Amino acid sequence: MPRVSGTTDKNHLLVSLGEAVRARRKALNLSQEALADHAGIDRSHMGKIERGERNVTMLNVAKLAVALSCRPSDLLLDAGL
Amino acid sequence: MPRVSGTTDKNHLLVSLGEAVRARRKALNLSQEALADHAGIDRSHMGKIERGERNVTMLNVAKLAVALSCRPSDLLLDAGL
Repeated sequence: MPRVSGTTDKNHLLVSLGEAVRARRKALNLSQEALADHAGIDRSHMGKIERGERNVTMLNVAKLAVALSCRPSDLLLDAGL
Repeated sequence: MPRVSGTTDKNHLLVSLGEAVRARRKALNLSQEALADHAGIDRSHMGKIERGERNVTMLNVAKLAVALSCRPSDLLLDAGL
């Protein structure tokens, strides 16, 4: 797994957020590629975000929320953050 | 203002988030420097985050939340995101 800055707890945070994105994507019957395209995020980056391997930025969280028809805070709440 | 990727709406998002951070910081009577030190974020970066001039990462949002004794989702909810 590519290195992300921060502690194990923080990596866990990114994993939880990625899982929240994946769960909403699947609930909408979207492929990872379709979500990436819809959000305007590179497809290879999308997979890394869902696996918690990227320290995702707020603007990308916002793009994902738009593509998933939810609010950025919904993704964090889903992730228990 | 340094360029951030995305649209005007997205910059507004970063401004709102920065304002939420500032409001919680002031409510705790913390200086910007004290918050930066407490969160382990560079002092000059801290000012840019509060002004919405940086596309803040999730791990930095999480660090700020810890330093502000709240949850990451609280910061987004405060910001109306």
